[in-house]
Amino acid sequence: MRVMGVDPGLTRCGLGAVEGRPGAPLSLVAVGVVRTGADEELGTRLVGIEAGIEQWLDDVRPDAVAVERVFSQHNVRTVMGTAQAAGIAVLCAARRGLPVALHTPSEVKAAVTGSGTADKKQVGTMITRLLRLAEMPKPADAADALALAICHIWRGGAQHRLAEAMARAGKGR
Amino acid sequence: MRVMGVDPGLTRCGLGAVEGRPGAPLSLVAVGVVRTGADEELGTRLVGIEAGIEQWLDDVRPDAVAVERVFSQHNVRTVMGTAQAAGIAVLCAARRGLPVALHTPSEVKAAVTGSGTADKKQVGTMITRLLRLAEMPKPADAADALALAICHIWRGGAQHRLAEAMARAGKGR
Repeated sequence: MRVMGVDPGLTRCGLGAVEGRPGAPLSLVAVGVVRTGADEELGTRLVGIEAGIEQWLDDVRPDAVAVERVFSQHNVRTVMGTAQAAGIAVLCAARRGLPVALHTPSEVKAAVTGSGTADKKQVGTMITRLLRLAEMPKPADAADALALAICHIWRGGAQHRLAEAMARAGKGR
Repeated sequence: MRVMGVDPGLTRCGLGAVEGRPGAPLSLVAVGVVRTGADEELGTRLVGIEAGIEQWLDDVRPDAVAVERVFSQHNVRTVMGTAQAAGIAVLCAARRGLPVALHTPSEVKAAVTGSGTADKKQVGTMITRLLRLAEMPKPADAADALALAICHIWRGGAQHRLAEAMARAGKGR
């Protein structure tokens, strides 16, 4: 199963794709960030986020998309932009009929480190180990996107819907 | 100038288009609501909002779009969905190169009633009067969308950008 994780944000939207299944080694497919300028208008930024995510979906062709669930308790100054970037990621995936799952930051941390309160460094260390990378992916938003993808592969909560979706798409994987 | 107002929401997204200019009578172009089911998945709902707004933009052909600015202090339970619906409205407008403006609820109330703390009934009454309607537009989300459009026409803050945009589009209005 190939999962694309999205750590939403307007200034930096982390994107990471991982291939794997529960109980088997994981492999890195792609990792990066879509950036938009803080001095640009909101509309221009959202169009940029959409274009970046569309390009990634074209290139990576994931079986599912995992997006971080945004809470209003987050940083108040940036939470609206974060929610809007997340909404666009969900929109882009849903338009293609891809299954979309939302995972909370603590679910993601718990999945990759065993602790829902792990810090960024601990998450980065585990991502590096699990994907057998030479160094920690940077920036943190990119590492978080990979953690989301791994969380989704391991949680398996969406297995049923994924299986259905893959059957519909006629894939044998 | 023709302005389309958007009162964003996932369950009910109010849409209203008004034609007019500062100092001249206003006229109603269209008013309505795009609805999505609370039992549907987020992705399905966002795709539905996008399709509804796109249809409206095709039909109404506004010169500008005015969207309510969402704050994180709003109803915490629904604010994320509201922010995402607003983001999609901004995205749809920006993709077409239309000028987009965000107005706060108090700016809108002040524009149409003279008071930033007016209640919904007062806003509805003024919309009915200003557009010379036989009765108050319903639901309140639809009336709020019309108030946003009128606010935008009257505030004129975006006049310069609008004039530029209309010149680019070769319109003489």
